[in-house]
Amino acid sequence: MAVNVPELQPLLAIPGVRIGTANAGIKQRQRDDMVVMALDEGVTVAGVFTRSVFRAAPVKLAEARLARARALVINSGNANAATGEAGELDAAAVCDAVGESLPEIEGLDVLPFSTGVIGARLPVEAMRRGAAEAVQKLREDGWNAAARAIMTTDTVPKGKSVRVTLGDGDVTVTGIAKGAGMIKPDMATMLAFMATDAAVPRSLLQPMLQRVADISFNRVTVDGDTSTNDSLVLIATGRGNVRIDGADDPRLAELERALTDVAQSLAQWIARDGEGATRFVTVRVRGGVTSADCLKVAYAIAESPLVKTAIFAGDPNWGRFCMAIGRAGAEVDPGRVALYLDDVCIARNGMVADGYQEADAARVMAQSELTVLVDLGLGSAEEWVWTCDFSYDYVKINAEYRS
Amino acid sequence: MAVNVPELQPLLAIPGVRIGTANAGIKQRQRDDMVVMALDEGVTVAGVFTRSVFRAAPVKLAEARLARARALVINSGNANAATGEAGELDAAAVCDAVGESLPEIEGLDVLPFSTGVIGARLPVEAMRRGAAEAVQKLREDGWNAAARAIMTTDTVPKGKSVRVTLGDGDVTVTGIAKGAGMIKPDMATMLAFMATDAAVPRSLLQPMLQRVADISFNRVTVDGDTSTNDSLVLIATGRGNVRIDGADDPRLAELERALTDVAQSLAQWIARDGEGATRFVTVRVRGGVTSADCLKVAYAIAESPLVKTAIFAGDPNWGRFCMAIGRAGAEVDPGRVALYLDDVCIARNGMVADGYQEADAARVMAQSELTVLVDLGLGSAEEWVWTCDFSYDYVKINAEYRS
Repeated sequence: MAVNVPELQPLLAIPGVRIGTANAGIKQRQRDDMVVMALDEGVTVAGVFTRSVFRAAPVKLAEARLARARALVINSGNANAATGEAGELDAAAVCDAVGESLPEIEGLDVLPFSTGVIGARLPVEAMRRGAAEAVQKLREDGWNAAARAIMTTDTVPKGKSVRVTLGDGDVTVTGIAKGAGMIKPDMATMLAFMATDAAVPRSLLQPMLQRVADISFNRVTVDGDTSTNDSLVLIATGRGNVRIDGADDPRLAELERALTDVAQSLAQWIARDGEGATRFVTVRVRGGVTSADCLKVAYAIAESPLVKTAIFAGDPNWGRFCMAIGRAGAEVDPGRVALYLDDVCIARNGMVADGYQEADAARVMAQSELTVLVDLGLGSAEEWVWTCDFSYDYVKINAEYRS
Repeated sequence: MAVNVPELQPLLAIPGVRIGTANAGIKQRQRDDMVVMALDEGVTVAGVFTRSVFRAAPVKLAEARLARARALVINSGNANAATGEAGELDAAAVCDAVGESLPEIEGLDVLPFSTGVIGARLPVEAMRRGAAEAVQKLREDGWNAAARAIMTTDTVPKGKSVRVTLGDGDVTVTGIAKGAGMIKPDMATMLAFMATDAAVPRSLLQPMLQRVADISFNRVTVDGDTSTNDSLVLIATGRGNVRIDGADDPRLAELERALTDVAQSLAQWIARDGEGATRFVTVRVRGGVTSADCLKVAYAIAESPLVKTAIFAGDPNWGRFCMAIGRAGAEVDPGRVALYLDDVCIARNGMVADGYQEADAARVMAQSELTVLVDLGLGSAEEWVWTCDFSYDYVKINAEYRS
C-alpha cells in the first residue's frame, strides 16, 4: 500500500518522443509488459546505470548505445540479468526487431531495458512480436500506458509532468518510473525514463542527469540492496522552443531544477511505494564534518532493520537510532549528537533531552509520514535520504513472490 | 526458535573464577538479571569491545579497567548506553558496590557489562543490592546460572566447556554468551565471557583473543546492525597445571584452538538463535583475490533482506545472490562466478549451470541448515560467515519488543 502517492494524472507529451505498448505475455500477465519509445532524429540522450558489477545484459547494451539512441525497448517480467553472452544476444535480437519495424533506425540504435526475474532467458520470439505490435501503436501521448506497462511489484503507476517558463521560451518535462525500492525482489529493478522538449547538447545533458540522479533516485533506499538493472534515461528532443547551447546559459540551471522536481517526485514515490511500506520517512542528517559522513549516518539509519521495524510499530525506540549512528562509520562524537522526530527533540548531547516525553515522540511516529533529524553537532554539512518502514508485508512479498 | 542449538550441559568450573547471580528486578522479570564474577589475584584478562562509536558507558569503563580486573558485574535488561557521563557514574557506582562486598577488591578493579534497553538510566540502588546478593552466592560452579541470567531475547542459554591435553598438562576452557544476533533490538548486545585455567601473560592473551574473535563472534550477522555494548572477555586464571610464558611455546597454538572451539560454538549458536530464525546458513566465499573481498561478498549475501526472506521461504531464487554479489563492492567478474547450495551447482560463469534443476536447489533450501557457496573464480582467498533467515517473527519481535 503506497503512502500518499498521488493518483497518476494525464502526462504531457514530449514532441519527438512517441510511445507504444504491447502485451508479450512475458510473465503470463493480463496487461501490457512491453514499451517502445521512438525518438526523432537529432535528440540527445543521457543515461545513469546501476553500479552493480553484476549488471544485466540490457544495461551493458543500453550504456554502449547511448550516443546513437533512436529508440528504447523496455520490458517488465524478466530482468535478463545473470544470463551471460546469451542474454546480450537475446537483448540485441529484441532491439533488432524494433529496428526492423521502424524506418531509418537500425537495431544498433535501439537501447534495451528489462526488469523482472533474474537468471531466466528472455522469451525472444514473443518479445519480437510484442515489439512490432508496440511500434504499430506509437503515439505521443503514450506515457500513461508506459508508466503502467513497466510496473512490477509497484502498487501504483508513477509519472509526473511539469511545464516551466525559461527566459522567453518554455519547456516541458515528463518522467515515469517503476520500482518499489532500490532493492527489488526477483524484479531487481528501478527504471526511470524522463524526456524534455528542450534542446541540450549531450556534453551538458549527461553531467546534468548525474547531478539530478544524485539528489533524487540516489537518495532512495528500501533495504539497501542495489539492483542489477537500475537505469535512468533522460531524452532531450529539441522540439520545443528552448535551445541550450552552452554551459553558461542561465536557463540550464532552471531546466535542471525542473528535471530535479520530476525526478525527486518519482524517487520519493518509489520509497512511498516501497514493498510493504506503511510509513514514509525522511532521514535528515546535519552538522556533519562532510556530506559523505552525513549520508553514511542517514543510510545507516534508513537501512537498519531495527530502525525500520520500530517505525513500522510506531515505537519511539530511540536507542536504535543511536545504534545506527554508532555503526555508520562516520566521524561522530556521541556527546554532541542530537535527535529529533519532526519537531520533538528526543536526545541532546548523546543522551535523553531534558523534558522529553515519550508520548510526544509516539504522536509523531503514529503519523504516516515523519522526519528523523540527526544533528551531529560537528560541522555544517547536511544531507538526507528517503525511505519507508519494514513491515510483515515486506517479508510476505519477498518470501512469497515466486509462488 | 533456535535452529539446532544443543541443550546447555553442566559447564566446567574454572578455578580462580567464582560466580554469583541475583534478581535485581531491572526489567521487572521473574529471573536473575545480574551476575558477579570474582577473579582470584594474579589472573590475566583480555577483552574485545564493540567498534561502534556510540559505545555504552560500561564498555568504556570495562576497557579502561581491563589490566586490573578482579571482578566483573554483568546485568541484562538495561544497556546503559546513550546515557552520557551520568551513565558512567551509574556503572561506577554498581562496580563500587561489588568492590565493597569483596575483600581486597576496589571498585576500580570491577568491570561492568550491560545489555538491554538503550537510553535509560540504570536502577542503581536495586543493582547495588543485587550486586551484594550475588557476591553472597559466589561459587565456582555458577556458570550455568550466569548463562541464563545474561539472556535477553535469546530463546536458549548458550555455554560450552572443553578440556584438552596440552603437553603433559591439561587446560579447561568454559565460555558463555548471550545475543540473538550481532544486532540486538533495544537489547543491543552480544556479550560473551570465557575463562581458562591456563596461565597466559596478558601480552599474549589479548592478541590471541582478537584472533579468536575474528573467526568466531566477528563472523556472525543477523542483520548487520552492530550493538553499542558488544563485549567479549577472556580470563586466564593460571590455577591449572599449564603455564604459558612465551610466544614460542607450542602449547599456545593448541590453547588457541581450544578457545576457538568454544568461541565458534557460542558464535554459531547466536546465529542459530537469531531473532525469528528458522534456518541456519553458512555463507562461504572462495576464489577471491583477497580475504577482504570474500568477506564483503559473504556479508552482502548474509545481510541482504532479499536473500534472507528467500531463504525463509525456501525459495531457490538465485538471482538474489547475484544481486548481492554485484553490490558487494568486491573485485568480481560476473562471467567467472559460480554458485552452489550445498552440493547443488546452480550457476557457473555467471549464468545458470547446465543441467540445473530447480527441484534440487529447493530440496537443499527446505533443510534447516544449508551452505551457500560462491566461487569468485579469481584467486585463492576463502572466507565464511554465519547467519540465519529473515522471518515474520523477526519483524514481530522487533516491532513489538517494548510493548
